[in-house]
Amino acid sequence: MMPAAKEKYRPYPALRPQTRRWPDAEITRPPVWCSVDLRDGNQALIDPMGTGRKMQMWQTLVGIGFKEIEVGFPAASQTDYDFIRVLIEGGHIPEDVTIQVLVQSRPELIARTFEAVRGAPRVIVHLYNSTSEVQRRVVFGLDRQGCIDLALAGTRQIRELSAARPEGEVVFQYSPESFTGTEPDFAVEIVEAVAQAWGASPTRRMICNLPATVEMSTPNHYADVIEWFLDKVSCRDSLILSVHPHNDRGTGVAAAELAVMAGADRVEGTLFGNGERTGNVDIITLALNLFTQGVDPRLDLSDIDAVRHVAEECTGLPVHPRHPYAGDLVYTAFSGSHQDAIRKGFAARRKGNDPVWEVPYLPIDPADVGRNYQAVIRINSQSGKGGIAAVLERDYGLELPRPLQVEFAQVVQRIADAAGRELEPAEIMAAFTDTYLSPGRLELVEYSTVPVGNKGQNRALTATLLKDGEERVLQGVGPGPVAAFVQALEKELGVALSLRDYHEHALGSGADAQAACYVELVLPDGTGIHGAAVEAGITMASLRAVVSAVNRMG
Amino acid sequence: MMPAAKEKYRPYPALRPQTRRWPDAEITRPPVWCSVDLRDGNQALIDPMGTGRKMQMWQTLVGIGFKEIEVGFPAASQTDYDFIRVLIEGGHIPEDVTIQVLVQSRPELIARTFEAVRGAPRVIVHLYNSTSEVQRRVVFGLDRQGCIDLALAGTRQIRELSAARPEGEVVFQYSPESFTGTEPDFAVEIVEAVAQAWGASPTRRMICNLPATVEMSTPNHYADVIEWFLDKVSCRDSLILSVHPHNDRGTGVAAAELAVMAGADRVEGTLFGNGERTGNVDIITLALNLFTQGVDPRLDLSDIDAVRHVAEECTGLPVHPRHPYAGDLVYTAFSGSHQDAIRKGFAARRKGNDPVWEVPYLPIDPADVGRNYQAVIRINSQSGKGGIAAVLERDYGLELPRPLQVEFAQVVQRIADAAGRELEPAEIMAAFTDTYLSPGRLELVEYSTVPVGNKGQNRALTATLLKDGEERVLQGVGPGPVAAFVQALEKELGVALSLRDYHEHALGSGADAQAACYVELVLPDGTGIHGAAVEAGITMASLRAVVSAVNRMG
Repeated sequence: MMPAAKEKYRPYPALRPQTRRWPDAEITRPPVWCSVDLRDGNQALIDPMGTGRKMQMWQTLVGIGFKEIEVGFPAASQTDYDFIRVLIEGGHIPEDVTIQVLVQSRPELIARTFEAVRGAPRVIVHLYNSTSEVQRRVVFGLDRQGCIDLALAGTRQIRELSAARPEGEVVFQYSPESFTGTEPDFAVEIVEAVAQAWGASPTRRMICNLPATVEMSTPNHYADVIEWFLDKVSCRDSLILSVHPHNDRGTGVAAAELAVMAGADRVEGTLFGNGERTGNVDIITLALNLFTQGVDPRLDLSDIDAVRHVAEECTGLPVHPRHPYAGDLVYTAFSGSHQDAIRKGFAARRKGNDPVWEVPYLPIDPADVGRNYQAVIRINSQSGKGGIAAVLERDYGLELPRPLQVEFAQVVQRIADAAGRELEPAEIMAAFTDTYLSPGRLELVEYSTVPVGNKGQNRALTATLLKDGEERVLQGVGPGPVAAFVQALEKELGVALSLRDYHEHALGSGADAQAACYVELVLPDGTGIHGAAVEAGITMASLRAVVSAVNRMG
Repeated sequence: MMPAAKEKYRPYPALRPQTRRWPDAEITRPPVWCSVDLRDGNQALIDPMGTGRKMQMWQTLVGIGFKEIEVGFPAASQTDYDFIRVLIEGGHIPEDVTIQVLVQSRPELIARTFEAVRGAPRVIVHLYNSTSEVQRRVVFGLDRQGCIDLALAGTRQIRELSAARPEGEVVFQYSPESFTGTEPDFAVEIVEAVAQAWGASPTRRMICNLPATVEMSTPNHYADVIEWFLDKVSCRDSLILSVHPHNDRGTGVAAAELAVMAGADRVEGTLFGNGERTGNVDIITLALNLFTQGVDPRLDLSDIDAVRHVAEECTGLPVHPRHPYAGDLVYTAFSGSHQDAIRKGFAARRKGNDPVWEVPYLPIDPADVGRNYQAVIRINSQSGKGGIAAVLERDYGLELPRPLQVEFAQVVQRIADAAGRELEPAEIMAAFTDTYLSPGRLELVEYSTVPVGNKGQNRALTATLLKDGEERVLQGVGPGPVAAFVQALEKELGVALSLRDYHEHALGSGADAQAACYVELVLPDGTGIHGAAVEAGITMASLRAVVSAVNRMG
């Protein structure tokens, strides 16, 4: 039994502002993205990255298009320090990319941080101290003013060191860490004090980062407090408002999106949401969420599997099979009705030639992130005719008519039910071959036709068959070879047959093209029996499809 | 390069209602939970569950406390059908649990569904048809009225079969599938028509399930349309409003929470979010999110690892290391500052004896879901003194004083940096032993003290030591044995020493208790050197701690 919830946990003290505008906002451009993979992500790993893995991650982040990258906490980790030196001394920082370094408000750490970044033309120095009520009380033993003084001391030191730095600009970032546990009015107070100490102005904006260090409530409360903060703070125009959501309640992506609607200019996060505990917000998901709404995310994710591969290798953590946009299973439909709808959606798209994506159950075109369509439809016992037909069409070019789909789906479901597992496309094709294309009692060896009647409107067909291995020659007449062959078979078998369905299509193209033919014969009692054949010639395919159906009469 | 977003994707047509109340709502009780693990979850598996795995899942769901469980789509799958028969005929359904079965609006499927549930005293029959604009146009070729007629035909058939069913109540559930792609006014229209055909009333409420079959926008838009729907629909009092979020944009949990704030009575989802593509909403996360706000979720998750084990076994899919509440890493802090804050939070909690949970960086007490504290603090190169001290205290009972923590943390960081991986507690203890507790040049063999001076206010100490293996007898005088020993060592070594820090505490209790002692000696130049010892007697521990410091002078 869990303990009584209301004795141990208190509801989050929501702000409940009088008004709110963010629920009506539309995101029409991406925020500034800042990757914290090499810092927040790295510090949360069982085995933190060494310089090799860090460089691999760095190059991937730059390659995707990140312009701001937090590269470490150099005063706290020698590995971080060394990597930053490699980046700077090795000339690995493109002109349009800015590195960011994190530091606590302690004089020796700040001094060491400036040593770490010497020579970098432009750098974001990110100062933080924890401002939450609990941390002030339990961890630091500081009152509000003590907490402000700590932030100001660091700010002033960074201002002095920045002024004395010849090699280029320092952008200042301040985080009231544990912001979601901080009284909103105190957050405004400390940010205003820090902004003043820094000398922030509309032409010298500082980054004010309001982290959900721990996600503590529903994401609308985060948006409320961001909007309220921006309305309240006196120096809005001097701030680049950044958010840094974590994912303790599984709503980090939503929190970031609603915060951007509430006015945030910038989002810190990581690839696929690596980071402390439940992780940072996943920037890949945020970016592709924007993309599916018609907004260019300014990150190139056209080869998402390559990005995923690097992330998995550098973090030692997997991307889950159901991870949005990147998981192995997220473009896959197993269910019959979904498969059917997807198949029709693709067909409508081919026909309509409309650039706008609207395939049911696929919120994004897998091809846009470098995924192929092989994974979209996979077959198990939950699959229906639509999916099975789609697989045979996709992988073998066979376009089964609907009545044949229905019949064949039952065959496949029996196999999948008995196997209790997914069936591979080759297994489905094997089942189709077994059912329709394999030799039976009757085998058509050869045929010839000649025109008969006035004006040659009918054809007489002579066919050589093997029946249980014994040669038989049949003859029939009809308007075409198939009808003539059916008439010949009726006489041979002594049963009335009619042709209810007939479809034929080319398989492949050029000299090697074959014909696939599907027929349905109907017995006097109304029973329909399907047959199919694949042959080089269209007539042979038709006649052998009829033989296939006859063989299946049993 | 990805294609131009605005050519291919359109922004979601948000409702933008005139007013909204949900952002001010507080969730004070849990919604009705309905597990769809055995249906939506199962149909999304590479290898769907057989009866054995289904039964294991069923028993876990019932054990946790689910009262409504969708058990399959019996008309579409023989495995589902068979399992439902096993549940009913085997008497596996507790009196307070209701099974739910899904069916499309087709006469033969509905008839078969009623066969599947015969003998069940109470059952939810869940009818769906897809109502989205795209599916009506591309998949079904139906106009609005055709779509309504399809739903009504199924509703009427279910009403008739329910009336003719002697064994007990049928609760009717209708889902306008692909609701998030459906025009809101059409959703109201079709639900009202279905409710009327069913004969829904406040005393015969039907479940109206509005699924985010595909998650298409930010979660506030889902909440907006749920609230608008409930305001608009004429038969609100006859409906139990259910939601069924998927997670295509990674915001399924947020969508469910905001929808409940908007008035939803019931949530369909799965354990850890298994389900089609990116999965259904994760009910475990929803429930524990409520729990951390002081709301009893009415699901017992006191052994979350056991639930996770069953889910992983039944689905064949892992729970990610960063999955909220259940992942391997979600209670772990590697970073030094986090570890320090957590350690102080635990200490404050022990001291304050306050039932309310407020430990920094831990939104929930791991013990409440059956996790222990071993995983909370783990050590790698990103860790600081606080974490290292916490591990030695937690696993070895050693309470290092702060100055010693600072010194020892540098030792551990060097080792971790060099190893490039996590360090086990035993490795940290080994480093501590190596650094402070191992034999050195000087070894204290025995000592004796006697009182000296007027009123015996001083003590004279005689100590036998081995210095590089050679016996030496030293003598000193001081107010206590430690001071006397320091004086004796000053004479022996010819250097002035003073004792700056001294801490001692019991290690264990009873007859086997030992004493751990930590000292800091200061040299004339101000250099501090730490020493430590663990011994049976408190004086021997103190003196050997001094010897440890002396040996470390090098």
